[in-house]
Amino acid sequence: MNKKSVLSILALAPAVASHSYAESPGNNAGNQTDNRPNIILFMVDDMGWQDTSLPFWNQQTKYNRLYETPNMERLAKQGMMFTQAYANSISSPSRCSLMTGTNAARHRVTNWTLQKDKPTDRKSNLLETPEWNYNGISQVPGTNNTFVGTSFVQILKDNGYHTIHCGKAHFGSIDTPGEDPHHWGFEVNIAGHAAGGLASYLGEQNYGHDKNGNPISLMSVPGLEKYWGTDTFVTEALTQEAIKALDKAKKYNQPFYLYMAHYAIHVPLDKDMRFYDKYKKKGMTDHEAAYASLIEGMDKSLGDLMDWLEKNGEADNTIIIFMSDNGGLAAEPYWRDGQIHTQNYPLNSGKGSLYEGGIREPMIVSWKGTVTPGSRCNNYLLIEDFYPTILEMAGVRKYKTIQPIDGVSFMPLLTQTGNPSKGRNLYWNMPNNWGNDGPGINFNCAVRSGDWKLIYYYADGKKELFNIPEDIGEQHDLSQQHPDIVKRLSKQLGNYLRKVDAQRPIQKATGKPCLWPDE
Amino acid sequence: MNKKSVLSILALAPAVASHSYAESPGNNAGNQTDNRPNIILFMVDDMGWQDTSLPFWNQQTKYNRLYETPNMERLAKQGMMFTQAYANSISSPSRCSLMTGTNAARHRVTNWTLQKDKPTDRKSNLLETPEWNYNGISQVPGTNNTFVGTSFVQILKDNGYHTIHCGKAHFGSIDTPGEDPHHWGFEVNIAGHAAGGLASYLGEQNYGHDKNGNPISLMSVPGLEKYWGTDTFVTEALTQEAIKALDKAKKYNQPFYLYMAHYAIHVPLDKDMRFYDKYKKKGMTDHEAAYASLIEGMDKSLGDLMDWLEKNGEADNTIIIFMSDNGGLAAEPYWRDGQIHTQNYPLNSGKGSLYEGGIREPMIVSWKGTVTPGSRCNNYLLIEDFYPTILEMAGVRKYKTIQPIDGVSFMPLLTQTGNPSKGRNLYWNMPNNWGNDGPGINFNCAVRSGDWKLIYYYADGKKELFNIPEDIGEQHDLSQQHPDIVKRLSKQLGNYLRKVDAQRPIQKATGKPCLWPDE
Repeated sequence: MNKKSVLSILALAPAVASHSYAESPGNNAGNQTDNRPNIILFMVDDMGWQDTSLPFWNQQTKYNRLYETPNMERLAKQGMMFTQAYANSISSPSRCSLMTGTNAARHRVTNWTLQKDKPTDRKSNLLETPEWNYNGISQVPGTNNTFVGTSFVQILKDNGYHTIHCGKAHFGSIDTPGEDPHHWGFEVNIAGHAAGGLASYLGEQNYGHDKNGNPISLMSVPGLEKYWGTDTFVTEALTQEAIKALDKAKKYNQPFYLYMAHYAIHVPLDKDMRFYDKYKKKGMTDHEAAYASLIEGMDKSLGDLMDWLEKNGEADNTIIIFMSDNGGLAAEPYWRDGQIHTQNYPLNSGKGSLYEGGIREPMIVSWKGTVTPGSRCNNYLLIEDFYPTILEMAGVRKYKTIQPIDGVSFMPLLTQTGNPSKGRNLYWNMPNNWGNDGPGINFNCAVRSGDWKLIYYYADGKKELFNIPEDIGEQHDLSQQHPDIVKRLSKQLGNYLRKVDAQRPIQKATGKPCLWPDE
Repeated sequence: MNKKSVLSILALAPAVASHSYAESPGNNAGNQTDNRPNIILFMVDDMGWQDTSLPFWNQQTKYNRLYETPNMERLAKQGMMFTQAYANSISSPSRCSLMTGTNAARHRVTNWTLQKDKPTDRKSNLLETPEWNYNGISQVPGTNNTFVGTSFVQILKDNGYHTIHCGKAHFGSIDTPGEDPHHWGFEVNIAGHAAGGLASYLGEQNYGHDKNGNPISLMSVPGLEKYWGTDTFVTEALTQEAIKALDKAKKYNQPFYLYMAHYAIHVPLDKDMRFYDKYKKKGMTDHEAAYASLIEGMDKSLGDLMDWLEKNGEADNTIIIFMSDNGGLAAEPYWRDGQIHTQNYPLNSGKGSLYEGGIREPMIVSWKGTVTPGSRCNNYLLIEDFYPTILEMAGVRKYKTIQPIDGVSFMPLLTQTGNPSKGRNLYWNMPNNWGNDGPGINFNCAVRSGDWKLIYYYADGKKELFNIPEDIGEQHDLSQQHPDIVKRLSKQLGNYLRKVDAQRPIQKATGKPCLWPDE
């Protein structure tokens, strides 16, 4: 960044002459109720579209019959299910898009982050990854390989919301300003830090700390010491702490924003013993029963929060948004049993893939009086859309950001007053090597345009074209049949990537960047 | 507060149209060094003007010879001593003025705060205290009996400073939004909460927690669990934690603001055994030797921070401000040995009093290249002046606040380029009953105007006039000799108090407010 850019960032906060003030509140700030809605964003980690008893497809699948998520069903009865809600294919890109409202192609945190200046890409023989933003995102300049942006949480906080972070953060690498949720506008931080995973779900294992209290890994969960040595599963510990924070929030007489960002259902697939036996009795393998127990433990947390809202008279004035950050893990045979890449059926592949299995998420929004109970929306949206939507939900109409906002508010979908998806393309870019192989995984980019989806592979220039409503499993590449559509979407994808200054892998053989999809 | 006022506060943060942004930082936020100075505000609790080996008077006193504060001497050699730096007479008014830049007469937190909706005033036979802001201060509206203001820390944070709170906060009552430093723009909070004191200095006593980890009082120090059961004095624990936070700050490549707000030297006078024996050998009583050990422990912390700056190459670019929040405790015979009210000699009285012993503080500022080493400033200033000064130090020239700012920057004093004290009056208002009796304590107000100081007692209308430079001990009331000055200052004091909507006690006999000083 140049000097001018640094200065313009620094100049953002102050807007008028010294010592200007709005009005003296005098001695009595009053205790009037602030009627703006509370907002809970319930974000699950690595949860696939089918990892629930709630059918997001047009028919019930075997996974819907296997998993038990009664509270997701309860939430769906109150609100709107989104059947085409998209994220990125892995965690960091999604969470950075969420926090900054920008597309991953623009923010360039296109693989997962952990340690400062240590890219996490697996080596590839053919391609070199570009200098992506492996230090993640930050609200302040000063760190290399970092995208700088204003978070919507900061804006909510500046507008009088009490802001609570609970669980997984994963915004910036260790020792960068983005690592700590407190640097993002969160007033409360429960157990969030740089890591995108966890060493252990188990209180008996001190969530990844030895008996002297020292972390055994960079993914040891911080801040839950009071549960160490107990049988409290981390999902439960986070829920109990979140509820304490809500009890406190209620006393503050402010609307609250709770980012309930579960570490579940990320590996390691520890067994949530409250639910494990039930799934074993269904005949599931150890790993798959553990996976199911993680899902139901997460679902219980959702129910506990809904119960709190009801008991505390806040249910009618609280928006709940349920979401996951990428598709279900399907590429790691160590963790998943059965044939790999099938665990998100009917979707193809899973986490890390630009096939639907990697990016399509179970999403629900409930908002009494605004969202029709038991409704369903089949229009598509993308994770960065949460940014302007949540600010609109909070009534924040004007705000300044350092970065441009790519997201589009989906409020018209919630109120059924319009369709912002119409005529809009969605874009993904993954010029990286995640670390697993599989269908649609690594070194590619994609565009969704109406019913069509084009995937372009940087390594060999291969293109695939799918009609998503007709072929949700992406089994039939129609690129040969529709060269005109391939050409049009390639052009749009190329134009978009260049416009947002996206990155491409480099061909090792030539040292040159791979071609754009329309080159 | 009326609806309009709430809305105007809420409208502060957003300033321009939706989605406006300054400039895209692109993918590389750079790692240029931000050359703005770091700022450490080293705030001691209840430290008197003479509780140091550094002579702030025009001669050395017995206290200067008794106490040992080599690091304050070291700091004074690098910077400027202020001999007439004022605060309020007790903690909450001072700290609320510091955080909001407003005079205590305006913010109305005129006694100490702790529990929500529980005023701490001792009952008086004659006077009723007004409905003061016993819930403290907050950045957001919604709580009764609370002054709402924007903190300079929030503004520093919004301008890219990394902000660290360490030690005593004492901004808002328990269960109000002001209780948590994270709600004030601090990104890091070490051991700060609603309480203005501490249950114990001792690691052996878990800083006031029982063996099960439960707090034994509302003043148990939070967040230092890792030192429990060790012999680490809380002053040392805070210092070690602050240094860890500075290590981290250095990695962030941001300028930092560290509010090093020691719990020392507030009661209970636990013995800091690193220094206690030395003072016993000087022949001091147990209490007085403990008091001295608290002072030297605090001084060691100052030295440790200065050492850190030197070792880390930050000494030349870091401003250190040393200050206390009110006068030394002299009114409690349980804690202080010898004749009470004399422990701030040559000043009269101590904490809680509007005599100099209650409000004059040891203050030092070092700033390489800006402040002349070993210099001394005899102009007066007041605690709320820190607000605009620190923002000016940080180069923040334009900022918005909810509240008017009463403080005046003392930058011209530091640079010896002007005298903002000239022609300026300072004001105090204490319409409360602190809890101890003594000279100049409770139910009074005062004005300092040039050499003169007028104190007005609400209960009986008594007025005292002192020439401070000639009578620093306030032993000679000159009100009879100078009725013209009394009249002029009474008028100025009355005008000021009415202008800022200050409060007065109520006469129980009549139910009417006490008279203004000029009535």
